[in-house]
Amino acid sequence: MSYEVKSLNEECGVFGIWGHPEASRVTYFGLHSLQHRGQEGAGIVSNDQGKLKGHRDLGLLTDVFGKSENLEKLTGNASIGHVRYATSGTGEVNNIQPFLFKFFDGDFALAHNGNLTNAKTLRHEVEKEGGIFHSNSDTEILMHLIRRSEKETFKDRLKEALNQVKGGFAYVLLTDDALYAALDPNAFRPLAIGQMKSGAYVVASETCALDSVGAEFVRDVEPGEVIIINDAGMTIETYTKETQYSICSMEYIYFARPDSNIKGINVHSARKKMGKTLAKEAPVEADMVIGVPNSSLSAASGYAEESGIPYEMGLVKNQYVARTFIQPTQELREEGVRMKLSAVRGVVEGKKIILVDDSIVRGTTSRRIVKLLKDAGAKEVHVRISAPPLKYPCFYGIDIQTKKELIAASHTNEEIKELIGADSLEFISEEGLINSIGLNLDAPYSGLCMAYFNGDYPTELYDYQQNLTN
Amino acid sequence: MSYEVKSLNEECGVFGIWGHPEASRVTYFGLHSLQHRGQEGAGIVSNDQGKLKGHRDLGLLTDVFGKSENLEKLTGNASIGHVRYATSGTGEVNNIQPFLFKFFDGDFALAHNGNLTNAKTLRHEVEKEGGIFHSNSDTEILMHLIRRSEKETFKDRLKEALNQVKGGFAYVLLTDDALYAALDPNAFRPLAIGQMKSGAYVVASETCALDSVGAEFVRDVEPGEVIIINDAGMTIETYTKETQYSICSMEYIYFARPDSNIKGINVHSARKKMGKTLAKEAPVEADMVIGVPNSSLSAASGYAEESGIPYEMGLVKNQYVARTFIQPTQELREEGVRMKLSAVRGVVEGKKIILVDDSIVRGTTSRRIVKLLKDAGAKEVHVRISAPPLKYPCFYGIDIQTKKELIAASHTNEEIKELIGADSLEFISEEGLINSIGLNLDAPYSGLCMAYFNGDYPTELYDYQQNLTN
Amino acid sequence: MSYEVKSLNEECGVFGIWGHPEASRVTYFGLHSLQHRGQEGAGIVSNDQGKLKGHRDLGLLTDVFGKSENLEKLTGNASIGHVRYATSGTGEVNNIQPFLFKFFDGDFALAHNGNLTNAKTLRHEVEKEGGIFHSNSDTEILMHLIRRSEKETFKDRLKEALNQVKGGFAYVLLTDDALYAALDPNAFRPLAIGQMKSGAYVVASETCALDSVGAEFVRDVEPGEVIIINDAGMTIETYTKETQYSICSMEYIYFARPDSNIKGINVHSARKKMGKTLAKEAPVEADMVIGVPNSSLSAASGYAEESGIPYEMGLVKNQYVARTFIQPTQELREEGVRMKLSAVRGVVEGKKIILVDDSIVRGTTSRRIVKLLKDAGAKEVHVRISAPPLKYPCFYGIDIQTKKELIAASHTNEEIKELIGADSLEFISEEGLINSIGLNLDAPYSGLCMAYFNGDYPTELYDYQQNLTN
Amino acid sequence: MSYEVKSLNEECGVFGIWGHPEASRVTYFGLHSLQHRGQEGAGIVSNDQGKLKGHRDLGLLTDVFGKSENLEKLTGNASIGHVRYATSGTGEVNNIQPFLFKFFDGDFALAHNGNLTNAKTLRHEVEKEGGIFHSNSDTEILMHLIRRSEKETFKDRLKEALNQVKGGFAYVLLTDDALYAALDPNAFRPLAIGQMKSGAYVVASETCALDSVGAEFVRDVEPGEVIIINDAGMTIETYTKETQYSICSMEYIYFARPDSNIKGINVHSARKKMGKTLAKEAPVEADMVIGVPNSSLSAASGYAEESGIPYEMGLVKNQYVARTFIQPTQELREEGVRMKLSAVRGVVEGKKIILVDDSIVRGTTSRRIVKLLKDAGAKEVHVRISAPPLKYPCFYGIDIQTKKELIAASHTNEEIKELIGADSLEFISEEGLINSIGLNLDAPYSGLCMAYFNGDYPTELYDYQQNLTN
Repeated sequence: MSYEVKSLNEECGVFGIWGHPEASRVTYFGLHSLQHRGQEGAGIVSNDQGKLKGHRDLGLLTDVFGKSENLEKLTGNASIGHVRYATSGTGEVNNIQPFLFKFFDGDFALAHNGNLTNAKTLRHEVEKEGGIFHSNSDTEILMHLIRRSEKETFKDRLKEALNQVKGGFAYVLLTDDALYAALDPNAFRPLAIGQMKSGAYVVASETCALDSVGAEFVRDVEPGEVIIINDAGMTIETYTKETQYSICSMEYIYFARPDSNIKGINVHSARKKMGKTLAKEAPVEADMVIGVPNSSLSAASGYAEESGIPYEMGLVKNQYVARTFIQPTQELREEGVRMKLSAVRGVVEGKKIILVDDSIVRGTTSRRIVKLLKDAGAKEVHVRISAPPLKYPCFYGIDIQTKKELIAASHTNEEIKELIGADSLEFISEEGLINSIGLNLDAPYSGLCMAYFNGDYPTELYDYQQNLTN
Repeated sequence: MSYEVKSLNEECGVFGIWGHPEASRVTYFGLHSLQHRGQEGAGIVSNDQGKLKGHRDLGLLTDVFGKSENLEKLTGNASIGHVRYATSGTGEVNNIQPFLFKFFDGDFALAHNGNLTNAKTLRHEVEKEGGIFHSNSDTEILMHLIRRSEKETFKDRLKEALNQVKGGFAYVLLTDDALYAALDPNAFRPLAIGQMKSGAYVVASETCALDSVGAEFVRDVEPGEVIIINDAGMTIETYTKETQYSICSMEYIYFARPDSNIKGINVHSARKKMGKTLAKEAPVEADMVIGVPNSSLSAASGYAEESGIPYEMGLVKNQYVARTFIQPTQELREEGVRMKLSAVRGVVEGKKIILVDDSIVRGTTSRRIVKLLKDAGAKEVHVRISAPPLKYPCFYGIDIQTKKELIAASHTNEEIKELIGADSLEFISEEGLINSIGLNLDAPYSGLCMAYFNGDYPTELYDYQQNLTN
Repeated sequence: MSYEVKSLNEECGVFGIWGHPEASRVTYFGLHSLQHRGQEGAGIVSNDQGKLKGHRDLGLLTDVFGKSENLEKLTGNASIGHVRYATSGTGEVNNIQPFLFKFFDGDFALAHNGNLTNAKTLRHEVEKEGGIFHSNSDTEILMHLIRRSEKETFKDRLKEALNQVKGGFAYVLLTDDALYAALDPNAFRPLAIGQMKSGAYVVASETCALDSVGAEFVRDVEPGEVIIINDAGMTIETYTKETQYSICSMEYIYFARPDSNIKGINVHSARKKMGKTLAKEAPVEADMVIGVPNSSLSAASGYAEESGIPYEMGLVKNQYVARTFIQPTQELREEGVRMKLSAVRGVVEGKKIILVDDSIVRGTTSRRIVKLLKDAGAKEVHVRISAPPLKYPCFYGIDIQTKKELIAASHTNEEIKELIGADSLEFISEEGLINSIGLNLDAPYSGLCMAYFNGDYPTELYDYQQNLTN
Repeated sequence: MSYEVKSLNEECGVFGIWGHPEASRVTYFGLHSLQHRGQEGAGIVSNDQGKLKGHRDLGLLTDVFGKSENLEKLTGNASIGHVRYATSGTGEVNNIQPFLFKFFDGDFALAHNGNLTNAKTLRHEVEKEGGIFHSNSDTEILMHLIRRSEKETFKDRLKEALNQVKGGFAYVLLTDDALYAALDPNAFRPLAIGQMKSGAYVVASETCALDSVGAEFVRDVEPGEVIIINDAGMTIETYTKETQYSICSMEYIYFARPDSNIKGINVHSARKKMGKTLAKEAPVEADMVIGVPNSSLSAASGYAEESGIPYEMGLVKNQYVARTFIQPTQELREEGVRMKLSAVRGVVEGKKIILVDDSIVRGTTSRRIVKLLKDAGAKEVHVRISAPPLKYPCFYGIDIQTKKELIAASHTNEEIKELIGADSLEFISEEGLINSIGLNLDAPYSGLCMAYFNGDYPTELYDYQQNLTN
C-alpha cells in the first residue's frame, strides 16, 4: 500500500533570484546560510535564456557542489535552490529539490518548505486519474495540480493549484520567463524578499540569507500572496483572501538562525527575551547559567543578564561532529566515551548550575546532558526551558509526527524532572513566550502558531486528523 | 636543492592508548576531540599482538575513517593516532602520521606534535651517511636517530635520540611491546596522561581527549620525561635533567579547546580572566560586548562580566563553512556576498560595540570583521585583543614563520587601528596575560613561552636563527 | 522547446527472473553478460514480498554495484535489470532503467530495449492531458499508457498500452505478483526465455545471458507476445495478431555476442558464414586475412577458411581501453601515438592483407585502420565488409539517426575505397548476408530487417517519417 | 618477524622518456600498452627542469590518472612510469612505483620490473646499519645501495649498486639531469630502446609500447648494460662483463603482448609456431581447434593451420570482467552461474575439440574450462599446452613461488589429464618450444631461461635456495 507518510514532513530552506548574471552562485551562497534548515540534500536549478538546468544530490551543500563544475554549468540570470532536512532513514536523490520538469511546452522548476495536510488525498486522486509521481515528497503535487488546471495562464493555474493544497508551505517556482514565490494562508513558514545592490530580487526562507548575499530586506511575503518577479520587476498578487497569521513559534525558539528577522523580530533578541522572561518566571539560586550549545546560548545569556548570575561555558560542542558514522559501542559508552557534547569539569565542578535549553522532545537528550554535568561534578542542575512543554504534533512542516514522541504529552513536569535527573525543571509560560517574541499581530496568540503547546491548530487537519487521536 | 622548510611547521594532536580491547576505536574518539588541532589529515596505528597495522589519509578524521572497515581492521590492544594541521598548499599522504616502520627486527610507529629547530641539519647529516627519508616531515628524523643509535635497548636508543632533537615536541611511539610518550625539555606542547575505568592508560595532547573517552586525568607529562606504558603498567623516566617550563601561551589564548586543562589551568577560565583583565586594562564606554566566534567567546564574556556591559551575539558563524571550495567572485564580494561570519543587524545597528578577539596576525581578518559590523550599522567598534601584539615568529610548533606575516612586527597600535578601521584598539599587557593564566611556575614568565610577543626565545634556534633577521 | 529526440534512441539489454531466492544476484550476472549492449548505466529492481526496491546509476554494471551493499539490499525472489547504451553527451541518472513507480495501489518497475517510432506524439498527448514525465527516455511512456487505460486488469491495461506504442521494443515489467515480458510485432529486438535448474524462469535480451546463469533455453519470445511469469508458472499470450518477423540483421552482424543464438541461429556461426560468403563473392590474392578485433574475428576466420589464406593476428586491441578520458593531443597523434588498436609490424610488414570488418558507418575508423596497417609496412590492404553498405537510418533501436552520418548513403564504393585508402573494397551482397544468416522465416528477407541497407522499412515510421527526407 | 617475502615477486612494466615536451603524457600512453603487465597500481614521475614530481596510486592506469589534473601537473621534458602486477592480498600505495626520493642534494626516481634473489639479505644488512625502508618492495634496495656507495659520480654509484643486486631486473631511473636504464646480466626481463620522430629517446619493457607512442625501435638493452640518456644524447655502458642470455621463455609463451618483439622475435609469430609444433608433436583427430582467450589464440590458430582442422570460437571471454567484486555464491555456481568464460554451445555441441592453452599452473582453470565445454555438449576435449609442464618456481620476476602451487611438479601427465577431465593431454617439448621461438643465441637453450620446466637455474639463488627444497 501507498507511499510512506513519514518522509512528507520536513523542515527545509528555499532561495530564489531573478536578474543576476551569477544567479546560481548567489543561490549557492544564499543556501549556504540556510544550511541549518536542511542537511540531507541540496539542489539548484538555473534559467539560461528560458532553458532550465539543474543539479541536486544527497549531502551537504558543499558536498553536492563540491566539484565546482556542478555549479558552473548552471549558467543563466535566474535560479532557485533548496536545502532538505535529514529525516530518519536513507534518502533518495529523487526526493531532493528543486524538482525540474521538462514539458513539450516549456521547462518548470519547483522547491518547497513546509508540509501539506491533504497531500495523501490529493496524490491519491491524481494517481486514480492516471498521474504518475516520481518522488514520495508532497512537493510534486503542486506541479500535477498546475498541469491539470484548465486555466489559461500559468499564473492562474498556479493560483488555482495553491487553493487546492492545504497546510504550511513556502514555494519558489522558476519558469522560462519568471520567478514565483507563494506563501500559505497562515504564514506558517517564513519567506522574505530582498534586493541586491545590482537590482536583482531575491526570495529566501530567512533574512540571514538576504544578508549573506548582500541583499537589502524589502518585505516579508504575506500569507496568501504570490510574488511574480521577471524582467519587468516585481508584482505582488494574492491567491486567497482567507488568511490569518499563525507564524510557527518554533522558528523563533529553535529553527531560525539568530541573525534572522521574522516579521520584523530579530531571532537572537527574541531568544534573549525568552531567557529573561524565564529568569523572572522561574528564578533559582545558583552559581552559574549554562546554555546548551548552540541554539540555547541566546536564551541562556538573557537568563544570566536578568538574574545577575554569571554566564559560563560549562558545555562544549565538538564542531566537527557533523558527519561521523562511527559511534561508540555500548561498552565504550559505559566507560564514558562521548562525541558531541563535553562538560567542562574545571568550570562546573562543585557548582550549582542553571541549564537553559530550548525544548524537551523525548527527554533523552536532556537526561544525557544533566548526567554529563553531574558526572563532571556539578552539585545541582536546574533545567529551564525557553519553550512551553511540547504536547502536540506539528503538521505544518516540523518533523514531530505523533504524541508518542513527546514526553510532555504524557508526563507531568515533576515526572519529567525525575526522568531527566534534574534538581528542578521549569518551562516558560505560553504567555511569557508570546510576550517575549512580541509579534503583536491582530490574530490569536498575537499571530503565532502555538499548536504544539496547546493543541489549538489554526486550520483543519485533513489527512492528519487521525494522528491526533493516536 | 633540498626539501621545503615550510611544511615542517605544524600544530597537531596526538593520542595513545595501551591495554584496551577496542584501542583503535577509543583512539578514534580521542582524536575526534583533538580535531581542532589539525584538519589536514589523520591516522591511527594499532598493535595486534606485536604486529602493527595502520591507516592514514588526507582529510578530516571522519573522512579518513568514514568507511568503518578502515577502523575495524585496526585490531589490537594498543594504538596511537594523530591529527595533522592544514598548512597552506596541498599535502601528501606520505606526510600524514603516525609513520609506520617495518624492520626485520620489529615494527614501530611514531607520531609527533611540535617543530624541531635542528631538523634540517639532522636530516642533512643522516642523508650524507646514506639515510633515505620518505616524507618532508621532521617527525621521521627521530626514527632515523633511534635506528642509528648504538645503545642496546630501544629505550636507551630513544633517549639518545631525544637528546639530539631540539625544539618543541610531544612524541608518541608504539612498538611491539610498549607505548612511549616523550615531551621536550621546555614542555612547549601540552601532553597529558589519563586512565580509563578499565585501567587502560591513555596519553593525549589535551585533557579534553581524556574526558571524551571517559578517562580520569592522572598527570601532565613533565618536560624531559619519557613515559613507558606496557602490560606491566606505567613507568616514568627522564632523558634529560636540563629542563625549564616554557608552555606555549598561545595554547591558552587560542589553540586549546576551552574544556581542556593545561598544567592544571582550565583554558576557558584562563580566557575569561584575560577578558576581565582586558576590561580593567582597557575599558571603554559601549552598548555591548561581542566576541569573535568561536575562540573569543570566553574572553568576551569575561570582559562583559567585569565591565557590566551586556554580552550580545552580534556575530554569527556559519557552522557549515568548513570545507567549501566555492568562493564568492570579486564582483559578488563587492555586492556584499559573505560566507563565514555574519553581523546581526538587528543587534548591532546603531550601537557602540566592544569587539573582543584573541589575536591579530596579518590584520586582514580584523579589518573584515570591523567592516562587517559597521556595514550592519554599528556606530563604533572598539577592538580589544586578549593577547599582546604578535611580533616574532614561532619555531616550536605554531605555523608563524616570518615577521613579514605579522602586522604588529612593523606597525604601531595606532597604525593597526587605522588599518583595521577600528575606533580604538587595545591589547592585553604581557603581565596581564601572565597573571590571567596564573601558572606561577618557577621559571621566566611564570613558566610561559612569550617569545612571539617579546622575542625572548627560551632555547637556541639552530636552523632558524637566520629567520629572525629576515 | 521540448525534449531532445536524440537520446530516445538506444541499444540496451534487459533481464528478468521470477522465483529465485537470489534473484537480484542472478540478474547481476545475467546483465554482466549483456554489458556489451550498454555501458552508460545499469540498474536492478527486486520484488521482496510485493514491495519493490531498486538501485541504478550511471556507469558500468561493476561500478553501479561496486559496493556490494547496493546489490545486497535488493532482496526478494524476483527481479528485473537493465544495461543502457552510451549515447553521445552526458547522461542523467533519471534516464537509467529500470524505472520504479510507487502508486497508492502498488509498485511497478519497467525496463526496455528498443526505440518507439511514435514516442514524441504519445508524450505530447499525455502531457497535454496533465501527465508529467520525469525522464527523456521513451520507456516511461508505456507506464503512462498503462495507468491511463480504463481496462480492469493490469494485463489488459498492458495489452492496450502495447497496442499504442509503435516501433521496436522488448519490455520487461515487474509488479507485486508477476514478471511480464513483451516483444514488438516485428521481433526487431531479441528476447529469449530460459529456465534455471531450480525451476526459476528468466528472460533476457540474449541467450548468452541464459548460459551465464546456467539457465536452459526454453524458447524465443515471438512477435506480439506477452509472457506472464508468476508463482503459478509461465503463461504466454498475444496482444496483437498483426505480426511479421523483421529481426534486426545488425544483431547478427555486429551487436549480439558471438555465443548467443537468435531465433536458433548461432551468431558466431552466422558471422563465420558471412566471411565465407565474402570470400566467395569478393576473392582477392593476398598473404593473410586479418579481422578487426573483436567483432570481426569470426567473419575473418570464415574468410580465411574458405579462401585458404592464413588467418593472422595483424591487429591487437588494447583490452584496457574502456574508460580512459585522457586522449593524445594532435601533436602526439601526428607523432604516431595510439591507444586502442595496434598493428603488428612483425606480422604485416611487406604483406598483402585482406582486412575483414563488419561495417562502415562514417568511414573514419576504416581509414584509420588501413593507415595503421600501411604505416606498419603492409604492402596492400584489401577491405572486405561482412555487411552490405549502410545507407539508411534505423528507428527501431540502433543509434543511427540520419543519412548524414552514413558515408555509403552519399558515396560509391569506389569513392569510399579512395577515402579510406584501401587497395580494394567490397561489401557482402544483401542476398549473401541473408543466406549466410539462414533464417528462412516466411517473411520478406527471410524474416530479417534490411532497412539500413535498402530503405525497405517494415513498418510505418510515424514521428520519424521526416528524418528520411533530411 | 620482518616483511613478507611474497609481495617481492612481481611482473611489472616500466617506461621512460627523455627530451619530449609532453613527456608524462607520452609515458601515460606507453604504460597504457603495458597495462597487461600489471593492474594493481601505476605511477609516473616527471622531471621539470631538474625538479621531480610524481603521482601514483592503486588501480588501473586509467583510474590512477582518471582525473586529468593528476597527469597535467607532471610537467617537464622527461619522465618514467610503472605499472604494477596484482599480487594476492591488498596492496598499499607505498609499494606503487616509481619511488620518488628527495634528498638535500637532489631528486631521484626509480622503477623496476623483476625480482631480486638477494633482496632479503641486502635489506637486512642495510637495516642493521640504520637504514629505513618505507615499502616492502625490493625495488627500494637499489636506492639504498646507491646512497651508501662512496663512489664519486652517480653513474659509478649506480654501477656499484647494480653489481650488488642479484636476480632479474630491468630498472629505469630518473635524476635531475638524466634518464638511466639498466638490465640484469642474464636479460631475464625484456627492455627495449626506441626513438620518437621528434628525436626523444624512450625505453620500455616491451616494443608494443614503442609502437603505441610512434617510436621507432632502436635496439634491445643487452644484459649487463646501463643506458644513459640526457640532453647530449644516448650513451651505452656496461656495469659487468659477466653476462649470459637467459631470456624468460614465459614472456614469449604468456606474458608479452602478441605485437611485441623480444630480441627480434615477434611474440604472436612465436606462439603460432608453438601451435604448429604442437600440432606436429601431438596430433589428434578432431572437428575443431579452440584457443583459450585471449593469450592462447595465436597458438591455437597455428595448431589449426598446421593440422588443417578448422579454427573456431568455441569459448567467449567477457571483456568487462576486469573489476567486479561480486562473485557467484557457491549455490549459484552449482546452478551454473559463470562470469568470465562462456562456451558457445552452438559451436561445440557434439564436437570433438582440440583445446589449446598456454600453460597449466594449478590445473583448476583447465578443469573448469574442460567442464565448461563438456557441459555445452562437447563430445571430446583434447588439451594441448604450448608450454612444457611447469615444475619449478621462478625467482626472476614471475609470481610462482613454490612447487606446491605447480600441479606438474607432483603429478604425471596422465594424472593431470584425469584431474582436469580431458580426453587427452599433451605438452609441447622443451626442444619444440626452443625451436618455435627460434632465438638461436650462443647460450644454453639458445638463450632462453627454461628453469620453470627443468630446474636448470642460470644463476645462484641466494635467499631462495631453500625454496627449492620445500
